[in-house]
Amino acid sequence: MAAFEISPPDLRELVGAWLAEDIGRGDVTTTSVVPSDVEGRARIEAREPCVVAGVTAAALCFELTSSRFERVLEFKEVVGDGDRAAAGDVIARIEGPLAPILTAERTALNLLARLCGVATMTRTYVDAVDGTGARIVDTRKTTPGLRSLQKHAVVVGGGSNHRFGLDDGILIKDNHLAAAGGVSEALRRARANAPHGLRIEVEVSSLQELEESLEEGAEAILLDNMTPDRVSEAVRIAAGRALLEVSGGINLDTVRSYAMTGVDLISVGALTHSAPSIDLALELEE
Amino acid sequence: MAAFEISPPDLRELVGAWLAEDIGRGDVTTTSVVPSDVEGRARIEAREPCVVAGVTAAALCFELTSSRFERVLEFKEVVGDGDRAAAGDVIARIEGPLAPILTAERTALNLLARLCGVATMTRTYVDAVDGTGARIVDTRKTTPGLRSLQKHAVVVGGGSNHRFGLDDGILIKDNHLAAAGGVSEALRRARANAPHGLRIEVEVSSLQELEESLEEGAEAILLDNMTPDRVSEAVRIAAGRALLEVSGGINLDTVRSYAMTGVDLISVGALTHSAPSIDLALELEE
Amino acid sequence: MAAFEISPPDLRELVGAWLAEDIGRGDVTTTSVVPSDVEGRARIEAREPCVVAGVTAAALCFELTSSRFERVLEFKEVVGDGDRAAAGDVIARIEGPLAPILTAERTALNLLARLCGVATMTRTYVDAVDGTGARIVDTRKTTPGLRSLQKHAVVVGGGSNHRFGLDDGILIKDNHLAAAGGVSEALRRARANAPHGLRIEVEVSSLQELEESLEEGAEAILLDNMTPDRVSEAVRIAAGRALLEVSGGINLDTVRSYAMTGVDLISVGALTHSAPSIDLALELEE
Amino acid sequence: MAAFEISPPDLRELVGAWLAEDIGRGDVTTTSVVPSDVEGRARIEAREPCVVAGVTAAALCFELTSSRFERVLEFKEVVGDGDRAAAGDVIARIEGPLAPILTAERTALNLLARLCGVATMTRTYVDAVDGTGARIVDTRKTTPGLRSLQKHAVVVGGGSNHRFGLDDGILIKDNHLAAAGGVSEALRRARANAPHGLRIEVEVSSLQELEESLEEGAEAILLDNMTPDRVSEAVRIAAGRALLEVSGGINLDTVRSYAMTGVDLISVGALTHSAPSIDLALELEE
Amino acid sequence: MAAFEISPPDLRELVGAWLAEDIGRGDVTTTSVVPSDVEGRARIEAREPCVVAGVTAAALCFELTSSRFERVLEFKEVVGDGDRAAAGDVIARIEGPLAPILTAERTALNLLARLCGVATMTRTYVDAVDGTGARIVDTRKTTPGLRSLQKHAVVVGGGSNHRFGLDDGILIKDNHLAAAGGVSEALRRARANAPHGLRIEVEVSSLQELEESLEEGAEAILLDNMTPDRVSEAVRIAAGRALLEVSGGINLDTVRSYAMTGVDLISVGALTHSAPSIDLALELEE
Amino acid sequence: MAAFEISPPDLRELVGAWLAEDIGRGDVTTTSVVPSDVEGRARIEAREPCVVAGVTAAALCFELTSSRFERVLEFKEVVGDGDRAAAGDVIARIEGPLAPILTAERTALNLLARLCGVATMTRTYVDAVDGTGARIVDTRKTTPGLRSLQKHAVVVGGGSNHRFGLDDGILIKDNHLAAAGGVSEALRRARANAPHGLRIEVEVSSLQELEESLEEGAEAILLDNMTPDRVSEAVRIAAGRALLEVSGGINLDTVRSYAMTGVDLISVGALTHSAPSIDLALELEE
Repeated sequence: MAAFEISPPDLRELVGAWLAEDIGRGDVTTTSVVPSDVEGRARIEAREPCVVAGVTAAALCFELTSSRFERVLEFKEVVGDGDRAAAGDVIARIEGPLAPILTAERTALNLLARLCGVATMTRTYVDAVDGTGARIVDTRKTTPGLRSLQKHAVVVGGGSNHRFGLDDGILIKDNHLAAAGGVSEALRRARANAPHGLRIEVEVSSLQELEESLEEGAEAILLDNMTPDRVSEAVRIAAGRALLEVSGGINLDTVRSYAMTGVDLISVGALTHSAPSIDLALELEE
Repeated sequence: MAAFEISPPDLRELVGAWLAEDIGRGDVTTTSVVPSDVEGRARIEAREPCVVAGVTAAALCFELTSSRFERVLEFKEVVGDGDRAAAGDVIARIEGPLAPILTAERTALNLLARLCGVATMTRTYVDAVDGTGARIVDTRKTTPGLRSLQKHAVVVGGGSNHRFGLDDGILIKDNHLAAAGGVSEALRRARANAPHGLRIEVEVSSLQELEESLEEGAEAILLDNMTPDRVSEAVRIAAGRALLEVSGGINLDTVRSYAMTGVDLISVGALTHSAPSIDLALELEE
Repeated sequence: MAAFEISPPDLRELVGAWLAEDIGRGDVTTTSVVPSDVEGRARIEAREPCVVAGVTAAALCFELTSSRFERVLEFKEVVGDGDRAAAGDVIARIEGPLAPILTAERTALNLLARLCGVATMTRTYVDAVDGTGARIVDTRKTTPGLRSLQKHAVVVGGGSNHRFGLDDGILIKDNHLAAAGGVSEALRRARANAPHGLRIEVEVSSLQELEESLEEGAEAILLDNMTPDRVSEAVRIAAGRALLEVSGGINLDTVRSYAMTGVDLISVGALTHSAPSIDLALELEE
Repeated sequence: MAAFEISPPDLRELVGAWLAEDIGRGDVTTTSVVPSDVEGRARIEAREPCVVAGVTAAALCFELTSSRFERVLEFKEVVGDGDRAAAGDVIARIEGPLAPILTAERTALNLLARLCGVATMTRTYVDAVDGTGARIVDTRKTTPGLRSLQKHAVVVGGGSNHRFGLDDGILIKDNHLAAAGGVSEALRRARANAPHGLRIEVEVSSLQELEESLEEGAEAILLDNMTPDRVSEAVRIAAGRALLEVSGGINLDTVRSYAMTGVDLISVGALTHSAPSIDLALELEE
Repeated sequence: MAAFEISPPDLRELVGAWLAEDIGRGDVTTTSVVPSDVEGRARIEAREPCVVAGVTAAALCFELTSSRFERVLEFKEVVGDGDRAAAGDVIARIEGPLAPILTAERTALNLLARLCGVATMTRTYVDAVDGTGARIVDTRKTTPGLRSLQKHAVVVGGGSNHRFGLDDGILIKDNHLAAAGGVSEALRRARANAPHGLRIEVEVSSLQELEESLEEGAEAILLDNMTPDRVSEAVRIAAGRALLEVSGGINLDTVRSYAMTGVDLISVGALTHSAPSIDLALELEE
Repeated sequence: MAAFEISPPDLRELVGAWLAEDIGRGDVTTTSVVPSDVEGRARIEAREPCVVAGVTAAALCFELTSSRFERVLEFKEVVGDGDRAAAGDVIARIEGPLAPILTAERTALNLLARLCGVATMTRTYVDAVDGTGARIVDTRKTTPGLRSLQKHAVVVGGGSNHRFGLDDGILIKDNHLAAAGGVSEALRRARANAPHGLRIEVEVSSLQELEESLEEGAEAILLDNMTPDRVSEAVRIAAGRALLEVSGGINLDTVRSYAMTGVDLISVGALTHSAPSIDLALELEE
């Protein structure tokens, strides 16, 4: 269960703006070449294996576009968010007026390809740590404007969400520590000033800072750029007194060795900043 | 010279929305840990070689955030859009109140890293066709919400822009041809119905369709998924009667062989859908 | 077939804003005098002959207003866009709660009267060139805020649309020529810089500039303020190498003599800046 | 003194939307042909005699457009709102970057030409009733979206404003009377239900309804479609007990005969629905 | 009958913004603890006697929130606006998905409690002047953002509305008098400059100013801070020539003595600035 | 230090909307009676003792209104947020064009009076628990639309802020417990599903539920409607294992007895739902 999901009206507004970015004053090609009363059928197909995410957003692209023409089309999800599709699998079928199907095609595929990319990469990481108890979490390294959808894709890919923004969690990072003059002072300030409903997490780069953090009552600690051995040592030191998260230099080759240390959370920025788009296509049917 | 650039007020509005996505009700960590009157200096640094793009957008992140605090900071561009940065090079320096610098950091880097990625990949393709007369162009496979900025990054990377949307150019694609019942009929409809200010481009997948298109007066023709040899043959057939564009299956290994055919335009979707983010960092200075 | 039509949601938003301009906090007269549960019937009637345009926009005025009262009314179009109405003809019938009918009346008639005016004048010009092959086109001399609807009215009146804005066509006018230092240089710059999907049109005021433009590959040429004789000469010179458009000093007395020259397009600013409003009325029925 | 004027921020927003309607993604002609660092000077010139209105709105067109380019230009008003310009007179001078001057030209002239038209026609009517004590007032028959500016043009042309909308005045018209079942009942309802800050005006079409209205305490009475003789009789009957307004069938030939009757207000719908645009031009200077 | 009511779409927008203020990115407690498919029933209950107002706004809170979840719930009004509820009475019942009921609860109660407070206090004042002919009216001392709803609550509580804003009535107050240099000059200016559809009301603080106002034709006069005896004298002097309103220093103990003077309107700022919230609760049912 | 403060641009937008609610199309009284070039001076004065809050918002009312007139005025704060004012004390002085001062007066006072009310009541509660270590906190029982400003007023009055919305803290209340089937199950679900950055707080109504909560690892516990004796017992049981908050039935008479128990937080809904407005006035000066 994801803690937050973008609400349908908010998603509607976002998708509307993205369609407007592409459509502008109108789809002059389709309007000129395809009579508005022609009906058609199309399918969205995966051209490579993937975990699907973003079907609702893709459906909205078609539905909002057909409403521009005051027409109604039917969008049938075949593979739902979080399920796997093989190359050649049909993800969705669309039936109705052909013009809006063609007009919405590019925006829908642009979205779906990127979100499937995020879910697919997430699933790979989650599978790599299977059975270890460690959770794969995302970061705030998301594409501007797509945070909610990318974080949803992480969840359907099996991952968990870190903060949604700067206001729903406290994470004291290296630059904050520099500004405050050290771990202890930063934690003291956070305890004094932060709302009582938020846990206090701090990023540390040495075991000494870890111990300092535990003494000052940090409730979660981010171990930055440590080797798995160092992380194991950190887990031993913390002994359950705080949640431990690792971050930095983690890839598919190393993630399991981190997960084996007993750490609670492994955050992977690449999930949202470097997942490649999945190759998808919209094909018309006879 | 790019035909279109996002206007400063529109960029301001986009950046404002992206900051709001991250900041929400406020940056609780920074507000709790960093006193609002502390001043500081920071630099944005490349951690890998790249072509820079998006400096203006990054600057706006910091400026709009400091205006939230009713403070003013100074953002100094060191490397401008279109210039190369080596690993370790400083791209910009920021000086002023420390809190808004920390609050804006993530959104600014999220933008800059993606746009530098686009410009860098574009430059690689442009360099690969150097001296051939072929132009590298982008596609509509952009990230929803980022089209203007990504197309700007293509231009500063040395590429050219294709259509900005569905309303400023006619491109009759395979699905349109299917709907119209063939190349000739589709072109006839476009000539009859489209505004006289737009050229008519059509996608063809065979030399026979190419000849049909030339006969019907197509002004630009997109050769879809053809081998360089086929493209050479197409160039010979067209003999300057229409602009020729190639698309599909083009990568850094093959792009020059396409460029050598004498084709006018080579469109590369990967520039905007698969350019990896560039690794950048914001470092505080003493 | 018009290339672009304002989309229903965009029209809805425009009409909503126009209603708000008139209604403000509420229609105090109707609210005070007409009980909200009274039903009624009304008709919109032409008081002079006209070509009808804008019925959809008028319908929206009534529908959005009745939705302010959470009521539903029925708007029945009797004469559709593009059809002729004689004096006394009923254009539409409205049935339902009386209060919103009275509240929406003025905004609906304000719109409809102006759009019928545009369609009616357009039809007069189109009829005047009947059989000549010349097309009557509009200009950008539209009423701020009403461009889409006025251009729609031109189309249903039998005319064609020129550019919808500054971004979907290139038209190099006298002031651009002055800035660039002449026809040849301006055309060279346009060819070098403009997106490949747009044709290049240039305005010329002499036959010498016409020849210069043809040499530089202009695809459309606007002949500014020339006599029909001069235009005939221009048609002979161009010999089909470019689309020819005439503009300036054209009225109902002269338009056919221009059309007889063989020119392709005749643009008439008056269609959208000087078409008089048509006299219409809303009458209640027993 | 006008009771209401559109506020500068609201005007800014309206002008911004009108510019966006024309500019779309950008002015591709100017961007391609005119280098962004070229400076220039232009003048706006009347090509026929007129009363000027809308100079502030025109200035905003140029200023907002140059701000799109992050440039500053100087707009110097030469003839102010309400003053007369002869054919050939310069209304304003503009100096600065040439590109935004050319980009804003059309929208600025579209506005200015229409508003000068309203002010000029108003002045003609006002002059026609000079010395009679009757005031020329506008109606709600304005162009959707332009009401504030058109009503401002009426004022600078010497006229007065009627209601700005349905919420700042009570005017019981024929359809309201029909719905309420007569003048007396309608006035009773208005007195009972309307806010105490608003006067009650009623439209009457006979002297009998006039007397009924006076008995029921109407504070203003609109005499609809009466001859000047009938209006004189009405003035005698009313004897100052209510403001008298005439409307319907009034034109430049008849307006003075109405004004001579002693009526207080003469409302003329044509001021805002049929005033022809004034011919203006923007000329570049060496 | 209230002259103005906030329109359903405007109310929808206001309530949407208020929900967004509370919900932010989502209701993390409910999402974490209550499965989205659990159905439930709840009642809103008065915990003290009150006059109910705002049921429609409360219903919208629940409906808009359930639409965030793409669910539908049923809101059944039990006691309507203007009716009395005793302690323990059920005002409304809600049935449907439990999660949105819990998410909307606080915003709905926040609104309803305040609006019931306004209606309840208004009713007390209205009852206190029962039979006297004086009307209780509100002022512009409303809570920013809530004016329409508070004025609606005044009406359902039996009161009448004064101006809705600065644009739908003229009320010359002490500071205006000071700026104009006295009652006579201020009234002369208002008569000369104000639109003819608005009555002119002036605030006076002495009987001499009252007489001056009557001479200058004031149509309504606000007697500021006078004793009931003074007000009686004012009523005698005015003798029906203008509406008389009293304001200042009026409370439940004194209001009837003012009403007995024969004054027309008694305005009470406390109705909207000091009415205490009514104690309400939402209870889940088995 | 408050964790969140409404940002200046957001406040600007809110104040702009509140001004628009009052001003509508314009302040017809002031425009008619006060010439726009008259300058003036005014002071805002407290008419009863209070703790001041909202001066920045009040200043914005005047500044935004004068910008409507394209004028500049000077607003000088005399008493700042959080400071005490005695009856008769000047809170701020305003100097500049008189018209916008009069137009903004009501909205500014409406805001300031309410926010001073919140700060003043908060200070009374904070003083009442002085020296006890307990903190006075607000609730989500705020006025819709005013939450940020009311929570700011609580802080300057010496109180602390609870959650700003449903997304930045977990508080499991009685209805959630009912839905989940008890304290233990609800806490288990919250721990499993909630983001790791948020603490988990639960409301309990008995000591048994308190013990259950402590066992399940609740980090904060809200003791609902318990007597001070019960609360003392709870403090003893919790023994520092969780933050303890009391709520319900707390008033100025009882608050100190709760504070003496050693509880951490005392939440008082009345601070934001029942603080009476402070009596303030704007006086013109010679």
